[in-house]
Amino acid sequence: DKKLKLFSLNSNRELASEIAEEIGVSLGKCTVNRFSDGEVQINIEESIRGCDVFVVQSTSNPVNEHLMELLIMIDALKRASARKINVVMPYYGYARQDRKARSREPITAKLVANLLETAGTSRMITLDLHAPQIQGFFDIPIDHLMGVPILAEYFENKNFDDIVVVSPDHGGVVRARKMADRLKAPIAIIDKRRPRPNVAEVMNIIGNIEGKTAIIIDDIIDTAGTITLAANALVEQGACEVYACCTHPVLSGPAIERIAHSKIKELVITNSIPLSEEKRIEKIKQLSVAPLIGEAIVRVFEHRSVSDLF
Amino acid sequence: DKKLKLFSLNSNRELASEIAEEIGVSLGKCTVNRFSDGEVQINIEESIRGCDVFVVQSTSNPVNEHLMELLIMIDALKRASARKINVVMPYYGYARQDRKARSREPITAKLVANLLETAGTSRMITLDLHAPQIQGFFDIPIDHLMGVPILAEYFENKNFDDIVVVSPDHGGVVRARKMADRLKAPIAIIDKRRPRPNVAEVMNIIGNIEGKTAIIIDDIIDTAGTITLAANALVEQGACEVYACCTHPVLSGPAIERIAHSKIKELVITNSIPLSEEKRIEKIKQLSVAPLIGEAIVRVFEHRSVSDLF
Ligand SMILES: Nc1ncnc2c1ncn2[C@@H]1O[C@H](COP(=O)(O)O)[C@@H](O)[C@H]1O
Ligand SMILES: Nc1ncnc2c1ncn2[C@@H]1O[C@H](COP(=O)(O)O)[C@@H](O)[C@H]1O
Repeated sequence: DKKLKLFSLNSNRELASEIAEEIGVSLGKCTVNRFSDGEVQINIEESIRGCDVFVVQSTSNPVNEHLMELLIMIDALKRASARKINVVMPYYGYARQDRKARSREPITAKLVANLLETAGTSRMITLDLHAPQIQGFFDIPIDHLMGVPILAEYFENKNFDDIVVVSPDHGGVVRARKMADRLKAPIAIIDKRRPRPNVAEVMNIIGNIEGKTAIIIDDIIDTAGTITLAANALVEQGACEVYACCTHPVLSGPAIERIAHSKIKELVITNSIPLSEEKRIEKIKQLSVAPLIGEAIVRVFEHRSVSDLF
Repeated sequence: DKKLKLFSLNSNRELASEIAEEIGVSLGKCTVNRFSDGEVQINIEESIRGCDVFVVQSTSNPVNEHLMELLIMIDALKRASARKINVVMPYYGYARQDRKARSREPITAKLVANLLETAGTSRMITLDLHAPQIQGFFDIPIDHLMGVPILAEYFENKNFDDIVVVSPDHGGVVRARKMADRLKAPIAIIDKRRPRPNVAEVMNIIGNIEGKTAIIIDDIIDTAGTITLAANALVEQGACEVYACCTHPVLSGPAIERIAHSKIKELVITNSIPLSEEKRIEKIKQLSVAPLIGEAIVRVFEHRSVSDLF
């Protein structure tokens, strides 16, 4: 008789609807608007007293609007006597600000964790954090799902002959290794170096790519500078074709133009962040994380482990 | 040898510069930008180790951007070993969401207080909170300054013959009484009533306004619906002229047009929120709170009371 309620805020309504369908519930009634002066106005239009509530919101662009919507929703749910407030955040914004790389920098990824807890979050469900250490920024339970199996399955079905999985930098090698294990393929690493100051970077490739289908994998593609340079270097240095994939399609600024003009044959992404109309070019293929997240929600609700989901 | 540092974020740079001039310091070096994907990027460009830092930021429109800038700045200052982090917030956004007026509403004014404390605020300096109870939402010291003396002084210098100070609703009577005491004038109150559902409101005026110069006072003017209707009712019912004043010029949506076309002779406001170019119409006179806030900052820095400042 414990009740599950699923709500969507404004960042990713399509994904939330898909998740609702996956788990066989309808989305909770709630309007999220702005007052005339730009302040967030939230009306929860059904009782949630005693319920286990799941709120779907990615903190994608506009990140500050989406984050404040979420914090205000959590405050309202808490005061309306929700039993548990589970935040489902497919894309965790500010994740790249996860350490002080220079003096006097903020650690915004930790600030966001503190804000979510302060507002009243009981538990987090998230996907491919930029650094897994961000889990430790929370003092509440956090389920950390992985996009790799979804991306790998797509490429498995293509039945390529001779694959190499490529990490676009040294930070992504663990992720590339996971993908390569699934595809039973070797890996290569792009080893960018600047030989002397004010001299162009050299795209040195570690590993054998000659004549192979290269699949570059990253967690986030933002301005797409790294990934398009990597793709072009792979083709120049002997790969027969280049695919790219990532979990979180941030795709800001010049990203779409760069991808369109690059040697990337196809870019495979998930719907952790929705693609606006003008970003839907033919080269980009979007896969849904709704089945994965739906299953995680059901398991959390039923107090079952999600750790074998990936 | 304790050091004072004053920083400005993006909401109100002009006011911050005036405050800096008032207290004889230069503004701290700090850039507040956006990454390509809209995330806030803050670079504090001078050491603040061991300093008493004051950060000027109104959470005016765009409120969520301005609030996140502030929270991230506080995080950065805390990690850079500031001795004290004093938030100077001339306009406190979300102040109208200070109670549950209906079921399942958030209390965003309290949420904001919690977020500011969580980020690391040591002390707040603010001006004319929509409800003075919001002071109690904080567990840190808060100095609550008043705009009434600044507004009253302006009207004193006009040497009107026969004044009445008008509260546009029952919530504003205490503020009108303070203004009236300064101007040695009586008060009147607009008593809006809706005699039956679906019948237009009646603007009933309590108090004598016949032949007088009416000065309407409010804390916030947002869409200016209330204040322009009040002004027109005052003229229709016998006031010889109508002035209006407020501390916080939110002025969203149709506000400027309404004011321009109303019977208000002059609207007097403060610079707690900056006026964008297109809002600068002849009828509007802006007074500076920089001397008041500057004095408060100096006193807080020197551990002196600010309570006799108004
Ligand atoms: N939204 C953002 N866009 C671009 N760079 C960022 C962003 N947030 C943080 N950074 C910077 O990216 C670096 C971290 O990226 P990474 O080395 O990939 O973990 C840090 O130096 C940050 O200052
Ligand atoms: N930014 C806003 N703009 C307009 N109305 C608001 C805003 N924030 C809160 N409110 C509503 O205004 C009412 C409080 O205003 P007041 O009665 O003047 O204190 C509450 O019912 C709120 O739901």
